[in-house]
Amino acid sequence: MSPHAFLPRLADLAVTLGANVQPGQVLTVAADHGQYELARAIAESGYRHGAVFVDVQYFDPHVKRARIAHAAEGTLGFVPSWYGQRILSLVEERAARITLAGPTAPGLMDDLDPERAGRDLLPTVREIREVVEQRRVNWTVVPGPTMPWATLVYPGLAPDEALERLWAEVGHVCRLDEPDPPAAWRERTDALAAVAARINARRFDALRFKGPGTDLVVGLLPTSTFHAVRDRTDRGIEFLSNIPTEEVYATPDPERTEGRVRSTRPLVLGDGTVIRGLAVRFERGRAVEIDADEGGGVLRGRAAVDEGASRLGEVALVDREGRIGRLGTVFYDTLLDENGAGHIALGEGGDEGLSEDDRPRRNRSAIHIDFMIGGADVDVTGVTLAGERVPVLRGGTWQI
Amino acid sequence: MSPHAFLPRLADLAVTLGANVQPGQVLTVAADHGQYELARAIAESGYRHGAVFVDVQYFDPHVKRARIAHAAEGTLGFVPSWYGQRILSLVEERAARITLAGPTAPGLMDDLDPERAGRDLLPTVREIREVVEQRRVNWTVVPGPTMPWATLVYPGLAPDEALERLWAEVGHVCRLDEPDPPAAWRERTDALAAVAARINARRFDALRFKGPGTDLVVGLLPTSTFHAVRDRTDRGIEFLSNIPTEEVYATPDPERTEGRVRSTRPLVLGDGTVIRGLAVRFERGRAVEIDADEGGGVLRGRAAVDEGASRLGEVALVDREGRIGRLGTVFYDTLLDENGAGHIALGEGGDEGLSEDDRPRRNRSAIHIDFMIGGADVDVTGVTLAGERVPVLRGGTWQI
Repeated sequence: MSPHAFLPRLADLAVTLGANVQPGQVLTVAADHGQYELARAIAESGYRHGAVFVDVQYFDPHVKRARIAHAAEGTLGFVPSWYGQRILSLVEERAARITLAGPTAPGLMDDLDPERAGRDLLPTVREIREVVEQRRVNWTVVPGPTMPWATLVYPGLAPDEALERLWAEVGHVCRLDEPDPPAAWRERTDALAAVAARINARRFDALRFKGPGTDLVVGLLPTSTFHAVRDRTDRGIEFLSNIPTEEVYATPDPERTEGRVRSTRPLVLGDGTVIRGLAVRFERGRAVEIDADEGGGVLRGRAAVDEGASRLGEVALVDREGRIGRLGTVFYDTLLDENGAGHIALGEGGDEGLSEDDRPRRNRSAIHIDFMIGGADVDVTGVTLAGERVPVLRGGTWQI
Repeated sequence: MSPHAFLPRLADLAVTLGANVQPGQVLTVAADHGQYELARAIAESGYRHGAVFVDVQYFDPHVKRARIAHAAEGTLGFVPSWYGQRILSLVEERAARITLAGPTAPGLMDDLDPERAGRDLLPTVREIREVVEQRRVNWTVVPGPTMPWATLVYPGLAPDEALERLWAEVGHVCRLDEPDPPAAWRERTDALAAVAARINARRFDALRFKGPGTDLVVGLLPTSTFHAVRDRTDRGIEFLSNIPTEEVYATPDPERTEGRVRSTRPLVLGDGTVIRGLAVRFERGRAVEIDADEGGGVLRGRAAVDEGASRLGEVALVDREGRIGRLGTVFYDTLLDENGAGHIALGEGGDEGLSEDDRPRRNRSAIHIDFMIGGADVDVTGVTLAGERVPVLRGGTWQI
């Protein structure tokens, strides 16, 4: 299938399986300025599927650059009132939402003061949490390929070829090359949900990761619960909030991670910093040593922003059926890269499935940084309270 | 001066003389998706001039096209609540505003049902009137050249050359080729304001236009007042709401237009319809005959939408010092074309300068369509209540 055929297929998948836009709903689309082709295809698909209105909002990183370069010191955290108001209104009015992921202007801020750049968090606004927490919005995040992103991922290719290649790989990992992509995703997420249920049935006290450079025990809370990324709104609209998704994930005990772990893939931060050859040592839940061949200092800085930033908020498992890991491509984007391998995240933890007692025990932080620690040569073993050891992943294949 | 040098000059002129952005103000920019170069230059200039935040909102006509092509009948007038709320908030919070004009996607809707297209008024929202009426916002409209616009204006040129030519002409008519453009505009608008004051001092009862195909009397209200486009907010921030501006304009008596008028330049409606060779006959204020070599039916339809749509809401005079008229270019955009020649407008009239008694007598309508009736061979004469005839414009030169 030609990569160009993937554009309308991805739009349809985002509108149907992803956000699952309902007839009569408003659909909001958060795109970067360069992602207009996919945004327009999503608008068309949204209207075809009965949206009453499709509100595409383009964020322009070049306007953000102008701010960081020229705005007065002390104004860089300012956000006009209507930015948050718009999010609260769309939650209130139960709109659907599709966000396009992918770095659209890599390197654009490289010559600017990183401290100034760090103060402007847009396009993220505080109120966006309400979209997730109030469970009124059916939403999804899908990749939005652009030429700048493509040339970042495949620097050896001419821009046109790079974009073609990115579309080909994005199409493959989004299962757009399947005869019926939504059916393929239902089958895949059914399988992941079944694995999560089997893990949860064992009520493990901890997971142990063992591989080259890695011997790590991640303690779990009594009600830590593994999930596949499938959700429904308070009124029962099902949606798939990440496309692609290959993980089963849970919130661990932030006090009980012990040992050493070596990342199996590069980690790319939101500002484009690449961290390679990362090695971390944990003691009683805290990352006490963070080293890397490249970018270690930046990650140490992030892990020091608050008390929770050096503790885990997520542990996730990915099997060898996942399509991203098998490509070996580094996409420089969390949506794709974190689904390429099992991972853990420093920072904020979710509360899904946690009991009243456990909820306050989860990790809290302003950051959430996933880094990849899984792979075919990393064994994952469950450890029960009684000390029983149960193989979970061997060679990337579920044992449970 | 190279046309490319005009981009930052136009941005600076819009930010300083036009909107007159104050330190600490939020600046909102309304642009079409294709006008990103000027929008980014305005953002940079806004920050350099002390804006606390520059909020560029891009409207994408291709997303609008998807709606008109595919949205359900009966939904085409819907506007999400946050569109109007945003305008009310920026008025409330006294933001500045810059709108970029110019057709960015001419012909895009040509194959769609015009009746459906007519129901979707976006990017215009009802609440935008508050920006003008509440006088809290310092705002301006400037042209935002794009390649699609350029190829519309100069169909015989290659796209690159057309864009270069459009920038050259826009730069000239915006007086960006003057050593000090803001000073040039102050001088020009001082002169226009002085002319307006001299006309107002005569308290004409009517204006008579006489030229080839034209013998038209436009009755004035007792307090009809001519203005140059210069304004200030309720707190005294001066701004120039149109760049370029060459007109002095007033609100006439909607009951007392009589005679025939022939347009001196083509008229282009908001949806891209071109009306050529327009001839209109008025009786007791009403346009009773509307004929044209091209597009007459569309204009007759517009003039029938409500009672006021066939009566005048504006009369405006332009002298030969105006730079647009001398170029002879049809820009297919009201901001530029209406400043190319004296004009009258069917539909809504403003209330500036009208007494309490006259305000309710002005014309009200959902439309406001300017058409050009002035030129070097159209004489304009003022007629006093006593019947005295006072030359106002002869050969495009003020006589008053």
